[in-house]
Amino acid sequence: MDWSERVAGLCYGGDYNPEQWPEEVWREDVALMRRAGVNLVTVGVFAWSRLEPEPGRYDFGWLDRVLGLLHEGGVRVDLATPTASPPPWFTLAHPGALAVRRDLVPLTHGSRDTYCVSAPEYREASARIARALAERYSGHPALAMWHVHNEYGTPCHCDHTARAFRAWLRRRHGTLDALNEAWTTAFWSQHYSAWEQILPPRATQWLPNPAHALDFRRFLSDEMLDHFREQRDILRAAAPGVPITTNLHFGAWSPVNPWRWAGEMDLIAVDHYPGQAGEGAAEETAMAADLARSWAGGRPWLLMEQAPGMIHADGRMLAKRPGETLRHSLQHVARGSKGAMFFQWRASRGGAEQWHAGMVPHAGPDSRVFREVCELGALLGRLPADLAGPDARVEAGVAILWDPECSWALQAPSLPSPGLDHHDAVSQAHRVLWRHGVTADFAHPGADLSRYRMVLAPSLYLIGDAEAANLRAYVRGGGTLVVSYFSGVADEHGRVRLGGHPAAFREVLGVRVEEFHPLPAPVPLSDGGEGTVWSEHVHLDGARPLLRYAAPHPTGAELAGLPAVTVNRAGAGTACYVSTRLGDTAYARVLAAAGLPMEPAGVGAGVETVRRGPWLFAINHGADTREVKAHGTDVVTGVRAEGTLSLAPGGTALIRLDD
Amino acid sequence: MDWSERVAGLCYGGDYNPEQWPEEVWREDVALMRRAGVNLVTVGVFAWSRLEPEPGRYDFGWLDRVLGLLHEGGVRVDLATPTASPPPWFTLAHPGALAVRRDLVPLTHGSRDTYCVSAPEYREASARIARALAERYSGHPALAMWHVHNEYGTPCHCDHTARAFRAWLRRRHGTLDALNEAWTTAFWSQHYSAWEQILPPRATQWLPNPAHALDFRRFLSDEMLDHFREQRDILRAAAPGVPITTNLHFGAWSPVNPWRWAGEMDLIAVDHYPGQAGEGAAEETAMAADLARSWAGGRPWLLMEQAPGMIHADGRMLAKRPGETLRHSLQHVARGSKGAMFFQWRASRGGAEQWHAGMVPHAGPDSRVFREVCELGALLGRLPADLAGPDARVEAGVAILWDPECSWALQAPSLPSPGLDHHDAVSQAHRVLWRHGVTADFAHPGADLSRYRMVLAPSLYLIGDAEAANLRAYVRGGGTLVVSYFSGVADEHGRVRLGGHPAAFREVLGVRVEEFHPLPAPVPLSDGGEGTVWSEHVHLDGARPLLRYAAPHPTGAELAGLPAVTVNRAGAGTACYVSTRLGDTAYARVLAAAGLPMEPAGVGAGVETVRRGPWLFAINHGADTREVKAHGTDVVTGVRAEGTLSLAPGGTALIRLDD
Amino acid sequence: MDWSERVAGLCYGGDYNPEQWPEEVWREDVALMRRAGVNLVTVGVFAWSRLEPEPGRYDFGWLDRVLGLLHEGGVRVDLATPTASPPPWFTLAHPGALAVRRDLVPLTHGSRDTYCVSAPEYREASARIARALAERYSGHPALAMWHVHNEYGTPCHCDHTARAFRAWLRRRHGTLDALNEAWTTAFWSQHYSAWEQILPPRATQWLPNPAHALDFRRFLSDEMLDHFREQRDILRAAAPGVPITTNLHFGAWSPVNPWRWAGEMDLIAVDHYPGQAGEGAAEETAMAADLARSWAGGRPWLLMEQAPGMIHADGRMLAKRPGETLRHSLQHVARGSKGAMFFQWRASRGGAEQWHAGMVPHAGPDSRVFREVCELGALLGRLPADLAGPDARVEAGVAILWDPECSWALQAPSLPSPGLDHHDAVSQAHRVLWRHGVTADFAHPGADLSRYRMVLAPSLYLIGDAEAANLRAYVRGGGTLVVSYFSGVADEHGRVRLGGHPAAFREVLGVRVEEFHPLPAPVPLSDGGEGTVWSEHVHLDGARPLLRYAAPHPTGAELAGLPAVTVNRAGAGTACYVSTRLGDTAYARVLAAAGLPMEPAGVGAGVETVRRGPWLFAINHGADTREVKAHGTDVVTGVRAEGTLSLAPGGTALIRLDD
Repeated sequence: MDWSERVAGLCYGGDYNPEQWPEEVWREDVALMRRAGVNLVTVGVFAWSRLEPEPGRYDFGWLDRVLGLLHEGGVRVDLATPTASPPPWFTLAHPGALAVRRDLVPLTHGSRDTYCVSAPEYREASARIARALAERYSGHPALAMWHVHNEYGTPCHCDHTARAFRAWLRRRHGTLDALNEAWTTAFWSQHYSAWEQILPPRATQWLPNPAHALDFRRFLSDEMLDHFREQRDILRAAAPGVPITTNLHFGAWSPVNPWRWAGEMDLIAVDHYPGQAGEGAAEETAMAADLARSWAGGRPWLLMEQAPGMIHADGRMLAKRPGETLRHSLQHVARGSKGAMFFQWRASRGGAEQWHAGMVPHAGPDSRVFREVCELGALLGRLPADLAGPDARVEAGVAILWDPECSWALQAPSLPSPGLDHHDAVSQAHRVLWRHGVTADFAHPGADLSRYRMVLAPSLYLIGDAEAANLRAYVRGGGTLVVSYFSGVADEHGRVRLGGHPAAFREVLGVRVEEFHPLPAPVPLSDGGEGTVWSEHVHLDGARPLLRYAAPHPTGAELAGLPAVTVNRAGAGTACYVSTRLGDTAYARVLAAAGLPMEPAGVGAGVETVRRGPWLFAINHGADTREVKAHGTDVVTGVRAEGTLSLAPGGTALIRLDD
Repeated sequence: MDWSERVAGLCYGGDYNPEQWPEEVWREDVALMRRAGVNLVTVGVFAWSRLEPEPGRYDFGWLDRVLGLLHEGGVRVDLATPTASPPPWFTLAHPGALAVRRDLVPLTHGSRDTYCVSAPEYREASARIARALAERYSGHPALAMWHVHNEYGTPCHCDHTARAFRAWLRRRHGTLDALNEAWTTAFWSQHYSAWEQILPPRATQWLPNPAHALDFRRFLSDEMLDHFREQRDILRAAAPGVPITTNLHFGAWSPVNPWRWAGEMDLIAVDHYPGQAGEGAAEETAMAADLARSWAGGRPWLLMEQAPGMIHADGRMLAKRPGETLRHSLQHVARGSKGAMFFQWRASRGGAEQWHAGMVPHAGPDSRVFREVCELGALLGRLPADLAGPDARVEAGVAILWDPECSWALQAPSLPSPGLDHHDAVSQAHRVLWRHGVTADFAHPGADLSRYRMVLAPSLYLIGDAEAANLRAYVRGGGTLVVSYFSGVADEHGRVRLGGHPAAFREVLGVRVEEFHPLPAPVPLSDGGEGTVWSEHVHLDGARPLLRYAAPHPTGAELAGLPAVTVNRAGAGTACYVSTRLGDTAYARVLAAAGLPMEPAGVGAGVETVRRGPWLFAINHGADTREVKAHGTDVVTGVRAEGTLSLAPGGTALIRLDD
Repeated sequence: MDWSERVAGLCYGGDYNPEQWPEEVWREDVALMRRAGVNLVTVGVFAWSRLEPEPGRYDFGWLDRVLGLLHEGGVRVDLATPTASPPPWFTLAHPGALAVRRDLVPLTHGSRDTYCVSAPEYREASARIARALAERYSGHPALAMWHVHNEYGTPCHCDHTARAFRAWLRRRHGTLDALNEAWTTAFWSQHYSAWEQILPPRATQWLPNPAHALDFRRFLSDEMLDHFREQRDILRAAAPGVPITTNLHFGAWSPVNPWRWAGEMDLIAVDHYPGQAGEGAAEETAMAADLARSWAGGRPWLLMEQAPGMIHADGRMLAKRPGETLRHSLQHVARGSKGAMFFQWRASRGGAEQWHAGMVPHAGPDSRVFREVCELGALLGRLPADLAGPDARVEAGVAILWDPECSWALQAPSLPSPGLDHHDAVSQAHRVLWRHGVTADFAHPGADLSRYRMVLAPSLYLIGDAEAANLRAYVRGGGTLVVSYFSGVADEHGRVRLGGHPAAFREVLGVRVEEFHPLPAPVPLSDGGEGTVWSEHVHLDGARPLLRYAAPHPTGAELAGLPAVTVNRAGAGTACYVSTRLGDTAYARVLAAAGLPMEPAGVGAGVETVRRGPWLFAINHGADTREVKAHGTDVVTGVRAEGTLSLAPGGTALIRLDD
């Protein structure tokens, strides 16, 4: 049974840290939660030092009382294991279990997440506290789900890590010979003649080996997943039916590869904090939600954290616009989230995140933020119950290939241009689709892509042989593949594929790239536009050109008249190649030329629409009233739409479409 | 008896480091000092390795000869203990007594100030050399004052520091429970269950606990003060009547809180190096002097160091304009300094500060710099003797609240905006007053403020309960308080005060702030001007608005028409609130509206006037001739001013006012 | 016998790393080398882990086969000792032999060059592998030369280094007293009373002692030279007649002083990678070649590494323009290189430099890069054999003083301006000469300069007494010396010379500088131009002014009307002083005024001409056809030039001049 059937309705609430407040505040908390429509809170994420104040001595009394109060108030609990932040007593007793930086500086407690995930003492302590919680609360009536740890992400470079890394490398490569070959250790005399010679990436004299760095990122993801699985198995054994999750996230720093985690989690939960304000925040929100849904394989997932009323951008904590918190939350629900959760319930008085937003801000309930929290709770409460069910799937006809391993590989300091960025290229692809009203999934290059009419591969630098074959088969089977610059040039170990780029797709694209021409300034294109970041010397080998380079090239390269964008028929399908970074508009034109039906950008500008089963979500992010095409009934207001629905600035609608 | 009575006349001179020069230069030095009118030099600041070339073996012969020559030449001596720079033999013998960075990197000798102020070996060595100097020189006829150490400021994060920090925390907080509460350790599971778990702030995984960081800054100040007191007591016991000082300084990096040091020092001495050229340098100079006078409680203080002829700005050593050294020096004297001292007498040939300015520059006495040094000496020599006496107090009707603890707290990386800066806000307040001819004191928020007609509280983030009550009482008793944005929002431990900002002053200000709106770009105001850095959603609760927010707000916040600046009657007094960062002109208008009489900026632009007892100092920093209102006689030139005095560009005057 | 007679003809090839490729590729390599005209390859630079896979166990079989194949193919071998990159087994066995950063962070393997050159274990291992190679290959028929190590440049701050540094200091200074005097340790109490107190520069509290830092840079160069000599002596003993080299380089980071190395090397080899594209790359290339020739004392040298078809600029790998690789290579040959070598033969598939250029790029031989490699090989093959002989010397009438010790000294963080940069000032001087068709040598300030009509001293901060006397004698003997700002102000230990700048040259220049005025913005000059970075208060003391400062000075200094550039007759010669940083055009005018005949810039713009014995090289870097004045025959095309030769854009010519 899917987790979403076990947890009824839409979830609404946030992280609740009662240990920061005197007990008299708790009753007010529950009363305010009821007022706001909160029905689920995450408890205990950072409570280890309260739950186990000394090694082996547990203090559950306060948590019993908290859970009791919540249960009385009708608020379910997502109970967390607190292993993301070991107490000072732990780190004092086990200095060798703390994280060590790549320059071998040992970290100390005083923040959060200071531990080495490979340290045996930490593993044991983690299992012990998880077991204690499981034993005490697995039968608690308030328990809705388990939340293991928090935002996995602490890298470590210590000797424990070194041992675990070597064991992982043995499993991955089998023999030292294979590892030496995969890492090209013949370069710079790095040949390893014994496993114990291998270290985590540490401070070294100059450029590191990129294959070493990449495998370390992969190892970190798997090693953290091991830690998750240990706790999951303990919790599952104690409470077989209760869903178990952890809160995923993404970003350049994250060592977690969600594609490898998804299958191990009962439910995909994600945290999302946009990094820009305004339309950018809405676009990032849509992308985060589409990623989460894709990791969940299209099944319901849960937005576990967002910030109420605030966006952290460029080092400032900007207030969200009126209604923006509601609109972002609705974007998540529209794109498959079974609810909207926040960090955190009540803004902390002290500590490192005392200025982080809270559903109950420092100013108290008489505040815009709390009023909007109540509005959102009321709205979610009015949404139809079957919206959260399995029949309300989001359907997408396009997939964007997203692979964190590519992002990691493109963080190497030795690439031909600093402008090469898989995540940025993927974001552009998603943004263009979003602005043109196209809902997209994300996919791993090795996934079954047959249900998509189009697949985009933006700067997919690294690709394994099997994945490359998968994409070629997709095209030959009738699909349309749009490959962007610096894709398919390296194998899974980051070794350059030889003989002309992009070697993995050369044949299906019908081109051969003889030379890369990174750009110090834009290059003009034959349509009067320009390419940035990158250009290539492309030879046609069956493809026909859609766009050409024009003169002058900023480096003096003689590319004028040569193809910049090409299209090729291969088998029953089509493959486009985009050899430079196009602007959003030009990229959209390529997708249209490749046959993708899109809304004209500008007409519905700022209005986001998403189909989820029989429902249409419509969200007006803009400053003007807009018309949305629909035949149906707004399930919140009861208003009928006979062809069009008028949406005020900032307005939202959930329309049950006719038949 | 005040120190200023023990040291006759105005002091003029600088740091004199004869150990850098062959003995034949010393006689020339004394001759040049006489030519320049020098009457006081600081000797021995960095002479430890010369005074004690091996542990316990002292070489005082050279110092005897130096002091003898100076005495013969009529130059008094400010004799320094050399503990700011232990010799290499010390650091080699006691590697554990060296400073350790927050990332646990041990520092080594090779610069200056490399020691851990909490290391017992360093404390003992410091006391030993201080005692040896006291024994030998306490009766020396040249001895005018003692100078302990130099610019206290080396932080350390080692285990000695950890022990001392814990002892300090025990004294401050009493119990671990109190500390846990004050530091909000319930956040992120930082609860301490034993004192030994507490460390100095060291490299950690992510954001540090701001209360931990703040207490560490407080501890450093107190710990260094302990070191000062140990030496002071040794020196005082040996030479009861000789004043004892150390050279204070200020700036973001400084760990010293002068408010806590002032009472322990016989005389307040300060170093001042402006960080910008031109008018900015003059303004900074006035501010530094006003700070020093305020630390000294209005009594005479001493400018111990400034740079002759040079300003270090933006990484460049800019030459001061002709006469600028004299004008800066006169600013200090006008604002209460009993003289003008420099670093250093003779520019060093080698070493890290070989390009630092000297009164005798590398080019020798035949140089602009030395000529100006002589002019200044001559001028100081012509000033009336009673100017240095106790009756020549500077009187100020306005106080600006300045609290280094606020500056430290606002260095936390987790604040809502990087633009929040107590020191910068205080500087603006001082600059505006300075440009409008208003002389201001600085004050601690807990001080007796009753003699001021107006008190300014610029971004006074942190405030204790007693200090908050003090300010409220000041208003109710008839004072005028002008509070700027992000003031009074946190208690002394940096915990946010709840229920609506600025909680400490809400009642007296007659406002309630519901939400902060940090600004990514300026916001327009109702007077056509604009606010920067910060805005707030202000509710009137008795106050009336002076200025309102206009549209559009850069984040889309709906503040248009809401109050930006307010004024409120409370008891017998008045309290203004400024919820955004105003420009200098708009801030001046608020002060005027709150009843402060000010000179119109622009009329006397560039001319600084300061009343000190019966004297009026007038300094023309500008490029135009200006008229100064005065009835009296210039005591240097004998020129009469019958209503106005004409001041040439760069000119100065000291007028004894009639009656 | 000079090395250039032992190695016949022009060398053409690059680093060849067959260990990165399966053996079946090797035959293709040799075939492609023959196609490209390659006749010399550098083998084994990074092959230590392949040659000695375990301590003391050698595997030479593969190298035997490689050398055999090359020999069969007619390709000679520059055989490298692989000591720049010890294998992981070495660093694991000898953790104390790895480099340690100044903050004492130990570096680990995983890059290249991770070793402490002073560690006895590393020295022993280096000698052992050098001896093994010498024994096996000293008689190999393919062996053309030995290549010791690679780009010396790893600094270390460990205790081994400390011991070696102290020994070096003893040799340099003799006594501690002399060292204390030279380092001005009286400043900041740094007096050393025992040798063991002296450490390498490590992390310290604040500004370091600049003399300490400078001597450490000098030590590093000498220490690395010791390592070179150890290997050289082993190789020389085994194969007496085979030339021995290492590849020098230059740049701010380089610890090597080529003036001290040149005499120890059989042949000067250099690596050169320009840091900018376009004309800047051509200028840098000319300068690198002139430096190399000057280090070699005018004898033939060898360009050992350049990048085929690519320039790394501003973090991007820009493709060279069509023909640019050939033109750069010809610049080197024109300026004395006995050939043109590249890094590397075949672009690596993996490793940290997988995106570095290769003669055979990833795209394979069917590529622009390889086609240009073949063209260049063909051209070099057509050049006359005696071009590489001893009679084809480049003659230069001007010398630019270049001293890496000045660059090191100007890296101190305590200078009056961050704009002071010896290398940058030298580059400007060379660029101006290059653009005006003047071929220049570089020289050490202590060299015999009598054959030059003019010597330029750009920002020659540091100068020893003997070197200063040498320059004065050069002028008095009839030479023309042009000294730029901030020259001659410090002695060899970096101690400021007193009494008026620039003390070392005051007399010969006929000026006395009273005060420096670093510039925060440009200062106008009397010719309508402007000076940047720096200005000075110059008194004439015999000299006459060529250019004066105008108003206003950006700091308010009163320099208007005072001399900015002066000229002075001294003895039989002339000495000019340039007290500010002039633009290129103004600097050229000063050189012309000082009597240097120059081509007018603009007429031959973009065409570089160099005389080498009876040959004239002409290279058109520009985009227009240009005429070159010549009577002679192009030895490649056979075309006659009767007065002028027309050179197409990008074209080159090598003209045997008539008689």
